[in-house]
Amino acid sequence: MPEPRSKEQRKADTLAKLGAAVADVWVATSDGVRPFLVPLTMAWVDERIALATEETAPTVRNLVAHGRARLALGPTRDVVRVDAVLERTVPVGEASAIGEAYAAQNDWDPREVGPPYVFAMLRPDRIEAWREENELKGRLLMRDGRWLV
Amino acid sequence: MPEPRSKEQRKADTLAKLGAAVADVWVATSDGVRPFLVPLTMAWVDERIALATEETAPTVRNLVAHGRARLALGPTRDVVRVDAVLERTVPVGEASAIGEAYAAQNDWDPREVGPPYVFAMLRPDRIEAWREENELKGRLLMRDGRWLV
Repeated sequence: MPEPRSKEQRKADTLAKLGAAVADVWVATSDGVRPFLVPLTMAWVDERIALATEETAPTVRNLVAHGRARLALGPTRDVVRVDAVLERTVPVGEASAIGEAYAAQNDWDPREVGPPYVFAMLRPDRIEAWREENELKGRLLMRDGRWLV
Repeated sequence: MPEPRSKEQRKADTLAKLGAAVADVWVATSDGVRPFLVPLTMAWVDERIALATEETAPTVRNLVAHGRARLALGPTRDVVRVDAVLERTVPVGEASAIGEAYAAQNDWDPREVGPPYVFAMLRPDRIEAWREENELKGRLLMRDGRWLV
């Protein structure tokens, strides 16, 4: 097993993952009873995670009702995990700057799909990064919305 | 984009993933307010998903309190998604058959860790499998605990 990475290295790796071309993310939400989990593409826009999906999708409905998501990027042994709160949803037709950034990072442009697609803008408040067991210690990189490194 | 797979092929691929050596799975649960999401290793034992983790871990606490998990295997563009209910938890010290099966499929044996590790035995009631957009149709393979193929 390789030596554990420093927090500085983990932050750099995390930002690379968030900004990567065609970044897929697992998005967990809850309707208060049932857990919901779906893979979505994302964009990293002004320190926010932008998801694009239908306004009627369970993920958006859960976010609007309960406000929180837990997201995970990467394979299971090179994890970035983000707790985030919903800041706002923006209909794709009214989101030119977000739309530009999203299309630049991904292989599709939600603005071309049109309604009922919206961007859900999520503000991270906790970020962790670890690979194997020996990186569980030191995995916390952001707490209460502030980078620790 | 390749042609969509048949349901029969998807079931075969799904069973291969569930039974693969060192199968990692994303496990989403909820405490009723916050979504929780963590990668865990699993074993496929008598049509049940066996997870091994500490009895005090949020995943086990959420499962005991609310009964349900949504799990995902595979990369984000080759997904197997499972909705499952908690059947029982078994302390590792009392789980010889489950422990044997778990150790045979994985790269560690939770019985060697001892308490407070438990096996959480999850019964799938819904299973879906898809790769890209063109496989969203026909993704349902199990409903109400019964294979549709």
